[in-house]
Amino acid sequence: MAPMKHTLVALVEDKPGVLNRVANLFRRRGFNIDSITVGHSEKPDISRMTIVVDGSGASVEQVRKQLDKLIETVKVQDITSESIVVREMALIKVKATSATRSEIMQIVDIFRANIVDVSMESLIIEVTGDEEKLDSLLNLLRTFEIKEVVRTGRIAMTRGSTTTSEPGRKPISAED
Amino acid sequence: MAPMKHTLVALVEDKPGVLNRVANLFRRRGFNIDSITVGHSEKPDISRMTIVVDGSGASVEQVRKQLDKLIETVKVQDITSESIVVREMALIKVKATSATRSEIMQIVDIFRANIVDVSMESLIIEVTGDEEKLDSLLNLLRTFEIKEVVRTGRIAMTRGSTTTSEPGRKPISAED
Repeated sequence: MAPMKHTLVALVEDKPGVLNRVANLFRRRGFNIDSITVGHSEKPDISRMTIVVDGSGASVEQVRKQLDKLIETVKVQDITSESIVVREMALIKVKATSATRSEIMQIVDIFRANIVDVSMESLIIEVTGDEEKLDSLLNLLRTFEIKEVVRTGRIAMTRGSTTTSEPGRKPISAED
Repeated sequence: MAPMKHTLVALVEDKPGVLNRVANLFRRRGFNIDSITVGHSEKPDISRMTIVVDGSGASVEQVRKQLDKLIETVKVQDITSESIVVREMALIKVKATSATRSEIMQIVDIFRANIVDVSMESLIIEVTGDEEKLDSLLNLLRTFEIKEVVRTGRIAMTRGSTTTSEPGRKPISAED
């Protein structure tokens, strides 16, 4: 299978060193993590990681299984082929003077983004969407001079009412 | 000084193993990372990490200096005491039936959040804001049963037109 971007969701115990172990596991197998985000989940003391990684289906499945074996791991799921909501957030600082501010504000409106800081020489724009939407906005703003960008990396969730943490969805791994 | 949450911004080369080294550095010093996000920056091949960590000013400054010494590190700045924009994004899957949907939609409106998926039994809500705002919304939604939450962790940027990547802001570290 050709390499493609996979989105893994991992529920892990919120303990020191967990991120280190996860990063190490991908590193040892030669995977470059495209993005990783870690934040609180719906359960106390459980963090939820969204990991985007390039690789063939078989190699990603191998690393998913290894991740599942870490003692801090509650659950890991590859949700790439499911129907999912994918989002990223960015803050973009763009040069804006009295001459260009209104044109930038029009673009911000079209992208349903928000202006969260204004100075005489710049604006900070907050935008959410999939990676393509964020890239398109960044491309348009390049004309005005982008001064600074911070992006969260991808977070994702399956559509509908089933959840990643449901015990029934833990894959059977008897073949390990 | 009493421990408090510090927000570090690190610009690092986008190479395999960088996240591993950064996580390792905090781990060895006994810091538990509260949140870490990694994404693209305004420069090609440079990633920007936002790291939230608990500690005294002096101990965080020590780890900041060590981080600055990694060969992949372009710049690290502790922006805690600056005037900053702080944001986090969450996707929240909440139980919603025909009886509760409109009440949930009212709450979503008040928080200027968005509904990004609807099923007969659930909604997915996208919300951005500081951690307190996200916590407040989650508390309100608990009444309806929260099924799943994914949060990005904090991203941050200094207000006004100066930027973290400006060479002029690199701190002098002759005392290292």
